[in-house]
Amino acid sequence: MKTDIITIGNEILIGQIVDTNSAWLANELTKIGTEIRQIISISDEEQEIISCIKNSKKHADLIILTGGLGPTNDDITKKTLAKYFNSKLVSNKEVLSDVTNFIEKRNLILNKQNIKQAEVPENCKVIRNSHGTAAGMWFEMEKTILISLPGVPHELFEMVQKSVIPLIKKHFTFSNIIHKTIQTYGVSEAMLASKIANWENDLPTKMKLAYLPAPERLRLRLSYIADDNQIGIQLINNQIKKLKDIIGKYIFGEDDQFLHEVIGDKLRELGKKVTTAESCTGGNIARLIVSVPNSSDYFDGGLVAYSNKVKNQILGVKQETLDNYGAVSKQTVEEMALGALKLFQTDYAIAVSGIAGPGGATKGKPVGTTWIAVADNKKVLAIKYVFGDNREINIRFATNTALNLLRRFI
Amino acid sequence: MKTDIITIGNEILIGQIVDTNSAWLANELTKIGTEIRQIISISDEEQEIISCIKNSKKHADLIILTGGLGPTNDDITKKTLAKYFNSKLVSNKEVLSDVTNFIEKRNLILNKQNIKQAEVPENCKVIRNSHGTAAGMWFEMEKTILISLPGVPHELFEMVQKSVIPLIKKHFTFSNIIHKTIQTYGVSEAMLASKIANWENDLPTKMKLAYLPAPERLRLRLSYIADDNQIGIQLINNQIKKLKDIIGKYIFGEDDQFLHEVIGDKLRELGKKVTTAESCTGGNIARLIVSVPNSSDYFDGGLVAYSNKVKNQILGVKQETLDNYGAVSKQTVEEMALGALKLFQTDYAIAVSGIAGPGGATKGKPVGTTWIAVADNKKVLAIKYVFGDNREINIRFATNTALNLLRRFI
Repeated sequence: MKTDIITIGNEILIGQIVDTNSAWLANELTKIGTEIRQIISISDEEQEIISCIKNSKKHADLIILTGGLGPTNDDITKKTLAKYFNSKLVSNKEVLSDVTNFIEKRNLILNKQNIKQAEVPENCKVIRNSHGTAAGMWFEMEKTILISLPGVPHELFEMVQKSVIPLIKKHFTFSNIIHKTIQTYGVSEAMLASKIANWENDLPTKMKLAYLPAPERLRLRLSYIADDNQIGIQLINNQIKKLKDIIGKYIFGEDDQFLHEVIGDKLRELGKKVTTAESCTGGNIARLIVSVPNSSDYFDGGLVAYSNKVKNQILGVKQETLDNYGAVSKQTVEEMALGALKLFQTDYAIAVSGIAGPGGATKGKPVGTTWIAVADNKKVLAIKYVFGDNREINIRFATNTALNLLRRFI
Repeated sequence: MKTDIITIGNEILIGQIVDTNSAWLANELTKIGTEIRQIISISDEEQEIISCIKNSKKHADLIILTGGLGPTNDDITKKTLAKYFNSKLVSNKEVLSDVTNFIEKRNLILNKQNIKQAEVPENCKVIRNSHGTAAGMWFEMEKTILISLPGVPHELFEMVQKSVIPLIKKHFTFSNIIHKTIQTYGVSEAMLASKIANWENDLPTKMKLAYLPAPERLRLRLSYIADDNQIGIQLINNQIKKLKDIIGKYIFGEDDQFLHEVIGDKLRELGKKVTTAESCTGGNIARLIVSVPNSSDYFDGGLVAYSNKVKNQILGVKQETLDNYGAVSKQTVEEMALGALKLFQTDYAIAVSGIAGPGGATKGKPVGTTWIAVADNKKVLAIKYVFGDNREINIRFATNTALNLLRRFI
């Protein structure tokens, strides 16, 4: 079953934004077993939209359009679809009620443009949107289904997961693909590949392995097309068991959890709390911890200690330590971790101090040099890393390396 | 002059990687005045590549292919192009010398696969690559130019900037497109559209307006095709001047700056410092501030005060305030801001306390309720907002609303 993803909007074509929606959609659709034939970005122009649909229809069983459903004049997807299907725009009660709820919740007043958002082509089935004013639309053509969705990422994501995937699964028949993902950290793709080369060669023929690298984690995804679900899961689990024997110490989780989620669960289970003392990561570790609902079970707060003054006066790092060893040193991160432990009265502390770049390098300490410490009330462990020369990537690496160090410390 | 960008490679179609190359290419090509008609991702399959080229050729003056030029078996772009052009692969001296240099520099030994990399279709002009083994290729068709380039980002970027852009500029004549972007915050797309409806209607016919909404900012982009650059810029600037009279208070910048960057520049200019006391945003404001190089000029650090204990013991929020009004209240955020000002000894402080969700709602305080305060040494201003019901989006809205409040406070 073949799918084309079509993104409508000039902002992608002029390179102003990167099309992350399509990558996300492609991943979700691949997981349920559809094959993505093409991902296409086109402009907000009637002629382009219609000719692209006509072209995709020749090869695709499913066409997913995103974007162009906003209330403003440059958003023309809806009226173009009405024209294409020779249908007329009519106000839909469900959508109007969703739009009204959405607006009223925000203490805003329903205006003309909001009311127009409730109009959809007469021949479509509506896909409801509780996070915005643009409804999704499902159209049935002779052989092809066309779905139109808003391009605002959080609206799109929720609608796809809650409604679109179940509808697609119901409408099409799929061969049964089983996926299982293993999360690793602290090992490069090339190193991992060489460690598991023999295991990979011995995988059953219908089982496929994909590497999904990112600064947050290196994921390995096993996929298997199975007639029988139980047998398929069993076969995948057997392979994962073997994998754990080879690279177990790098594995921090299965399925889709991030390091900060895994650590949160572990801390809750132990009834322990953690705090953070962050210099170059600037609050990024705390932010990730707090991004998880109910993180208050194991996190009271943390300090962003960016300047030496804050490290010294609030965290209690000795001035002579800063003078003698510098802010990016074993001694400083150790005192930061111990200071945070005392200030926030927690069981564990993470401390990070590094040179994120582009400036700040000194002799013997190139950009990317980062000291990370983890401590409990008995011991403190500090390790030096040298990441790259990109500020953003350095911060992401430092954040996740610190979280991984805590995971292995606990 | 119309361009299609075609990316070849399965990893994009299964959602494994995001196609950042195309966004970068689109931006570079737009700047010199080409209009990107489509960005298309297809698989490493001969039939797909050929049918995509045939289809693009109907509308595009320029087709840029990226990817599929590596030495492994799944890379088939080169032999597919030779077949399409009915040309044969011949070893090219320049490319062979580049490949040999590249390999020897790395103390590796030239192997059979490297030597094959020097083969290109006889009918192409070579675009040299000093960062890898895959040469670029320039093909002339009846009305269309086709360029094939490697997909490895740093190779692609260098080749495009050094060779491809100059070649394109030499071969085509361009009409001149001018873009200008205005950044706004604190106003919805629908509300903005209704406020500027008359202005929008009165725009010159060749001037186009696009809305680019995101939780971080709502951008308005004006585009104009001008024969004369100076006159075009003047015309756009005139419209922006009018726009500022209508919605000036929402405008925080031009071109591509974010709120946290604009605020950083402003603070540096004033020689002032800011600190943060964050509950529900969990360090996200501090992280954004620190994401900017040299933010140490105006930021020493901040506190993530997630629990009431930290708000009380470290920030000095009175226990009776927390007991009487709750953590999400005017009184608490005001005391948080004043406490942070004192603790970090800064000129300004931002404080945020809200219910990010999904849990935590109480009577009269639904999920999304967020109090934000900004303070200096003379006054404190607190405002209540009610965002939505998505934790991540609430955090992003609270973060940027707080930054915007500081911007207007300064």
